[in-house]
Amino acid sequence: MVVCLTRLPSLIFTAQSIRRSPAFPRRRHNFFSLPRLSAASFSTQSAASSPPETEDRVDNLKSRINQERAVTPRSEDFSAWYLDVIANAELADYGPVRGTMVIRPYGYAIWEAIQEYLNVKFKETGHSNMYFPQFIPYSFIEKEASHVEGFSPELAVVTIGGGKELEEKLVVRPTSETIVNHMFTQWIHSYRDLPLMVNQWANVTRWEMRTKPFVRTLEFLWQEGHTAHATPEEAEKEALQMIEVYTKFAYEQTGIPVIAGRKSKVETFAGAVRTYTIEAMMGDRKALQAGTSHNLGQNFSRAFGTQFMDENGQRQHVWQTSWAISTRFVGAIIMAHGDDTGLMLPPKIAPIQIVIVPIWKKENEKAGVLNAASSVKEVLQSSGLKVKLDDSDQRTPGWKFNFWEMKGVPLRIEIGPRDVSSGSVVVSRRDVPGKQGKVFGISMEPSILEAYVKDKLDEIQLSLLGRATLFRDSHIVDVSSYDELKEAISLNKWARGPWSASDADELRVKEETGATIRCFPFEQPEGSKTCLMTGKPAEEVAIFAKSY
Amino acid sequence: MVVCLTRLPSLIFTAQSIRRSPAFPRRRHNFFSLPRLSAASFSTQSAASSPPETEDRVDNLKSRINQERAVTPRSEDFSAWYLDVIANAELADYGPVRGTMVIRPYGYAIWEAIQEYLNVKFKETGHSNMYFPQFIPYSFIEKEASHVEGFSPELAVVTIGGGKELEEKLVVRPTSETIVNHMFTQWIHSYRDLPLMVNQWANVTRWEMRTKPFVRTLEFLWQEGHTAHATPEEAEKEALQMIEVYTKFAYEQTGIPVIAGRKSKVETFAGAVRTYTIEAMMGDRKALQAGTSHNLGQNFSRAFGTQFMDENGQRQHVWQTSWAISTRFVGAIIMAHGDDTGLMLPPKIAPIQIVIVPIWKKENEKAGVLNAASSVKEVLQSSGLKVKLDDSDQRTPGWKFNFWEMKGVPLRIEIGPRDVSSGSVVVSRRDVPGKQGKVFGISMEPSILEAYVKDKLDEIQLSLLGRATLFRDSHIVDVSSYDELKEAISLNKWARGPWSASDADELRVKEETGATIRCFPFEQPEGSKTCLMTGKPAEEVAIFAKSY
Repeated sequence: MVVCLTRLPSLIFTAQSIRRSPAFPRRRHNFFSLPRLSAASFSTQSAASSPPETEDRVDNLKSRINQERAVTPRSEDFSAWYLDVIANAELADYGPVRGTMVIRPYGYAIWEAIQEYLNVKFKETGHSNMYFPQFIPYSFIEKEASHVEGFSPELAVVTIGGGKELEEKLVVRPTSETIVNHMFTQWIHSYRDLPLMVNQWANVTRWEMRTKPFVRTLEFLWQEGHTAHATPEEAEKEALQMIEVYTKFAYEQTGIPVIAGRKSKVETFAGAVRTYTIEAMMGDRKALQAGTSHNLGQNFSRAFGTQFMDENGQRQHVWQTSWAISTRFVGAIIMAHGDDTGLMLPPKIAPIQIVIVPIWKKENEKAGVLNAASSVKEVLQSSGLKVKLDDSDQRTPGWKFNFWEMKGVPLRIEIGPRDVSSGSVVVSRRDVPGKQGKVFGISMEPSILEAYVKDKLDEIQLSLLGRATLFRDSHIVDVSSYDELKEAISLNKWARGPWSASDADELRVKEETGATIRCFPFEQPEGSKTCLMTGKPAEEVAIFAKSY
Repeated sequence: MVVCLTRLPSLIFTAQSIRRSPAFPRRRHNFFSLPRLSAASFSTQSAASSPPETEDRVDNLKSRINQERAVTPRSEDFSAWYLDVIANAELADYGPVRGTMVIRPYGYAIWEAIQEYLNVKFKETGHSNMYFPQFIPYSFIEKEASHVEGFSPELAVVTIGGGKELEEKLVVRPTSETIVNHMFTQWIHSYRDLPLMVNQWANVTRWEMRTKPFVRTLEFLWQEGHTAHATPEEAEKEALQMIEVYTKFAYEQTGIPVIAGRKSKVETFAGAVRTYTIEAMMGDRKALQAGTSHNLGQNFSRAFGTQFMDENGQRQHVWQTSWAISTRFVGAIIMAHGDDTGLMLPPKIAPIQIVIVPIWKKENEKAGVLNAASSVKEVLQSSGLKVKLDDSDQRTPGWKFNFWEMKGVPLRIEIGPRDVSSGSVVVSRRDVPGKQGKVFGISMEPSILEAYVKDKLDEIQLSLLGRATLFRDSHIVDVSSYDELKEAISLNKWARGPWSASDADELRVKEETGATIRCFPFEQPEGSKTCLMTGKPAEEVAIFAKSY
């Protein structure tokens, strides 16, 4: 049993408590809000965790074999479970530079599924893809006051190029509003050039102190949309449209019942007038900000002189938006649906939707079983499904069951000699463990099997959303006083209550409870409201929670 | 006529003669081989070319209007033509940092078409996409001797992160062999882990001195495949397979009759055992290296200790390959097919395959013509074609004809009032100018029109390849002596002749003629050969040419 060693990477990211108590939250991009640590705590670790190349590989192999074990149960230690799942399911690995991540094929395939869906939606809503350079002159970052305040502490800076010290330092893009506006200023002249609506798929870099795979890494992948409009109304409509695209994506593709809403002023993006967000509840009931859409107003167009001639011949600054979803969403999917056994993937974004496990004992059964398994694979694959046939004879069927369950494959098809004779298969659901999720005697007849499998996948997709919605709703508490809020947070729940208090009060809540306003949800209860903190009239409820 | 100003970007890249006479060609990656300039000639230009934000926009508009002009004819000045096409067709623009490029939607859509095709082929041939971090510890680059020699002069280096000087400088990846091997060493243990075959779509950075949009930029986009194998034969087979994928892509998708072959030792990739290449002839008869596939042997696996246990329990270093195609290919397409009028795009990679131009004079004709144009668009679009209906009333039909010809759209459909009454359209081919390329009276009947248009697009695709092949073959001269070689090069042709001379001789040819060995083509003439330089027996012919 010395096989499948690539399936046993060692634990690669340090589990870290990701509590947040930023003193200056406005300074930080909300996607990655984290406490600013003292500079002394930072150091670059080059390849510190990798084995020396001269070590005895055999010993290394042995120790790796000993590491073969199930993932830590989620119920036991959520953070350790998360890292185990990422390592054992081969979603990602640790890059040689501290805080960087290698996205492995299985993890990258989830990102590709995210890209495929969103890319179509962006084009349907009138956006074109393009590409802006990642090196930004340092002076650009300084042009928008709150932007520089937010980003300057976390920049990676190129100071040497072609062996020479550079005259002007170059920032590796943490986000592209500044360079986008520099270019927009050259392209936009008249109202006829508007709206200008573009998107790019790119890598971005933020020098984060505490990192966690997918959730917060030094470099990550994302899409960033950037638009310019002739009126503030259009920009607002666009910002809302894109948060709606994200919301629909989260619900329908990933089965995550995010709560969409508006950020508080304190939590608004550095440079935005208004930030909309989708907030997802993870399995440990922490909130994860899973996507944002910003109405930038004229902040960047004034800083960069991005003007147009309107229909009356008047020069005006354009109104803008930007919006982004990143590889962080892969982390959201892991933490929203996984269970003690490992990953549980929604069929619509699963790299493998069905795994086929052939079962035989006697050598003379093998050919028949493998034949049947192959033709089942053929049938399902040609109908557009993502199928894996695990026909290796290095592992027992039981091992394979566990392995593919840990990898979160939604459906398993088992085929043994008796199934071959009866022309049927056994189908097991990942989301319903044990016998309850197992159905015997599904016909191998292509049209019947295909219809059954597609139907089951739809059912699982909906079931995951339903379960996550129940989970979410049973952990949101309506509160009407600060004491109730504190109690809810201490019970590890989300607190929803009327809020019209000051920024200072909001920061006080954060310091005293560890919770922040995740958003003022778009869906608001009817009736008059009284601020939970001040007792004064409030127009909206806010949701408070601890978050990643 | 103060409209469509975004269509009039000013000339954005400095035209530069891109002659090459590297003294140490082995030090350079072949994708971007260029003379090393003295460090003094380098400076960072931040936003030097952008208009000051406070300038009078109205004056600027006026001056831009005056710039409206056709592209410089290709026959007059190839280099100016190239830059004009890129600017006027809005393929790319100048980034704020010297040598960087903004890829605009029309140019990016060509890259997307390249990606879509290759991505499928890579997966069909067993590769998975993944993502490696772009920051590489400086020490990694130094591990493979010829690799560091080749790349260290053109690195961009991050020295500051999160406001602190870094302990170890980080290289912004110029290519990923080093970090790939660092990870492979952790993932590969047994022969069962092999072959390991991955690809990534990513940006890379090389601090180039002379830049030219698409052809050579500080940052560019590419795919880089990386594989590890258990035997040298498998690695060789893979390297050859991927150059074959590239060759097929070049011929069938882009209509470029590249010549595939092996690089000379002098021109081999820094760190490779053998480099295969596809060489494309541009309209000015310079060669462009359009894709490479490297057999890396054990060079990187030895440097990084990437070993596996073979079936006999012996530890061996893996055999590897890497291969890449970049946004440079967009430059190849422009320069292979364009003509005096501008761009000419092969239908299979054209962002717009058909432009519909409605024509009306009287106001009462407009509705009928636009209706017909819309339904023709509908019909073609729903059959999977990429169609643009240019129904703006800001420009005359004549202006539109010129504009879309300059943008290289393969087919134009014209619809006027008379066509509406007769239920037919006029179809014009971009590749056959004037009346000869115009066919009247093609029925609007959906099935007829669709079939006709698809047929024409196929014809154009083949015609472009045929024309480029004729052009190529009429500019390759068989030579049997150095004098003949020199004459051919001085006539701006490619010289093909038997070669078995030394590296020193090869460098002498380069110095004296400006031409390099582009490759030893796979297709070799029969019979015995005598080296054109030494008169000694030669096994192969080589192709010499000046190149980008």
